[in-house]
Amino acid sequence: MRWLTEESIEHIALGAAVLGTGGGGDPYLGKLMALEAIKTYGPIKLLSIEELADDALIVPLSMMGSPTIGVEKIPSIEELVAPLEKIEETLGQKAAALMPIEVGGVNSLVPVLAAAAKGLPLVDADAMGRAFPESQMVTFYLDGHSADPTVLADEKGNTVVITPKDGHWGEKLARAITVQMGGSSTVCDYALPGSVVKKSAIPGTLTKSEEIGRLLLHKSGDGTHPIKRLLAVLNGYELLTGKLTDIQRTLTGGFTRGICEVEGIHDDAGRMVTLHFQNEQLLATEGEKPLAITPDLIAILDVETGQPITTEGLRYGMRVTVIAFPCDPKWRTKKGIETAGPRYFGYPVEYEPVEKLQEGGGK
Amino acid sequence: MRWLTEESIEHIALGAAVLGTGGGGDPYLGKLMALEAIKTYGPIKLLSIEELADDALIVPLSMMGSPTIGVEKIPSIEELVAPLEKIEETLGQKAAALMPIEVGGVNSLVPVLAAAAKGLPLVDADAMGRAFPESQMVTFYLDGHSADPTVLADEKGNTVVITPKDGHWGEKLARAITVQMGGSSTVCDYALPGSVVKKSAIPGTLTKSEEIGRLLLHKSGDGTHPIKRLLAVLNGYELLTGKLTDIQRTLTGGFTRGICEVEGIHDDAGRMVTLHFQNEQLLATEGEKPLAITPDLIAILDVETGQPITTEGLRYGMRVTVIAFPCDPKWRTKKGIETAGPRYFGYPVEYEPVEKLQEGGGK
Repeated sequence: MRWLTEESIEHIALGAAVLGTGGGGDPYLGKLMALEAIKTYGPIKLLSIEELADDALIVPLSMMGSPTIGVEKIPSIEELVAPLEKIEETLGQKAAALMPIEVGGVNSLVPVLAAAAKGLPLVDADAMGRAFPESQMVTFYLDGHSADPTVLADEKGNTVVITPKDGHWGEKLARAITVQMGGSSTVCDYALPGSVVKKSAIPGTLTKSEEIGRLLLHKSGDGTHPIKRLLAVLNGYELLTGKLTDIQRTLTGGFTRGICEVEGIHDDAGRMVTLHFQNEQLLATEGEKPLAITPDLIAILDVETGQPITTEGLRYGMRVTVIAFPCDPKWRTKKGIETAGPRYFGYPVEYEPVEKLQEGGGK
Repeated sequence: MRWLTEESIEHIALGAAVLGTGGGGDPYLGKLMALEAIKTYGPIKLLSIEELADDALIVPLSMMGSPTIGVEKIPSIEELVAPLEKIEETLGQKAAALMPIEVGGVNSLVPVLAAAAKGLPLVDADAMGRAFPESQMVTFYLDGHSADPTVLADEKGNTVVITPKDGHWGEKLARAITVQMGGSSTVCDYALPGSVVKKSAIPGTLTKSEEIGRLLLHKSGDGTHPIKRLLAVLNGYELLTGKLTDIQRTLTGGFTRGICEVEGIHDDAGRMVTLHFQNEQLLATEGEKPLAITPDLIAILDVETGQPITTEGLRYGMRVTVIAFPCDPKWRTKKGIETAGPRYFGYPVEYEPVEKLQEGGGK
């Protein structure tokens, strides 16, 4: 157990935006909300996954919806706490701790607010090890755990409890409800006992986010470029340094989908890389050749500071470095690739690990 | 208390289709399902509203969705019973009796199936006295009762429990969920104690449907035309006899919306009446002049037999008589007209009672 400080929040917000691969909502909004919550309600305990009691109810809390809408809809404490209280009522058990369902953007820090307001600890883990656009894209789903109940709430006072046939139906129904609720909602799903969370969640991801954030905010003694240091920590690869020359975004079915083009500069002059996103960055290609493929992670960083740029923050002319790094091994299983691989998102490529694409010469 | 016989079901199906003003789903489908249920599970008790215990839980059960889809999606007993069992679980109380939420088409008889399967009695009442396209268009809503919980289920095994802010949000969320579920769902909403149902429901509407059905299926001794006898029972008016010359239907947002044109024949030669529907017939106009306006009832009948034709059954060239008759007084209140009057549906007319339009020379 340790206490989350204001400095921790600053670092987590930044680091989670790298792991969030451009999605998961606005990290700066999340940071502001979390800092305010700690000021109002006091500090928060962060528990390591080993500290969870086997029968303790661990409740993930997140926001659902397109980031395009999320940036304009700031949730109130009431709205954040509503799905938590409803899931406790439905299950007949109080939450012992909250956890983020994903690291990335606002969703790393949304549980901080609710934890502060309810005086609950937070678990240093998540169920993606990154951000993904759909709610069944979680390790709990890969391990066969049920999405029943999935609880949604909005700022108007509506709550909905879904008992879905499976995780895909949970996502489908929750997404339609979220669109009706105005494009964003607060969600509790995959509330599970500590014994399951210990086996199935990805441990330490808030601490990992914090380390990444600290690295990006503080210069190294030897003046090494932050992106170089980041790649060392993430076992990652630089795909390209260039400028953003085209960004196409559409808001459909509750998602922000699109592509952006990065034209190489300096050593990369003459190259052109296309990034394909659905809330999160999912595929990087150069001509016909894939450079990095979901579920591996792709992040767009400011060329100077190494700070991550969200899908919503992409602007024409920005100078960026695109990096990619390996996902958690849970995503490289057959079910992991079926659930969040390129074919699921409709990209006509087969998954290959980023190490192979970058070191093995690719296809 | 009396027993519902197979003959009662035949009569109710036909009579409810007159009160259903073209909507509420396919009455023939409802009839077949209800007859089959009685054969399988045995007869059903029909309770008058006065027989309900004050603390008994009375649960309305219906199908939601466009009739265009409903005709092709026959619900299973499991699908019909699923929202009932979920609402019992949510409220922590067993249903003492079921009731139809509306009379009209399949929804008059859907509760018969579930009542037969569960061995429960049925209440001789509904919450509309007709059919309406939206779920907050019920006397329970007019009287200020909550739509919490609204429970939906589908044939795939999904269930959803909505705690809506109000009846309008209940409708909005339920409709979006129904669309995701494939265009139709089974619903329990406005589950209320007997004491409330006694005051707020419209009593005797299954018996009234049965009387109308009997009238249409059996010739009178003196050879009076069935439509003439029907108008006497309903205090109704013949608007026009003619042939259907144009039908336009679109399926949008889970509703079947459209218009149909009836060109006068015989005494009505030279006249043209337009009927505007959204699942149900809502407005009849002749040129600029309204002839009958929601919440008053409009029905399209076969010119010979007087048997009602549903919105889905309308075909070019059919010879029909269009009739209109007064709604229950609960719908003629300020809140009734706000909730289900012409402005709510987007028609640019003010509500006038059909008696005034027909006898007072209209506007």
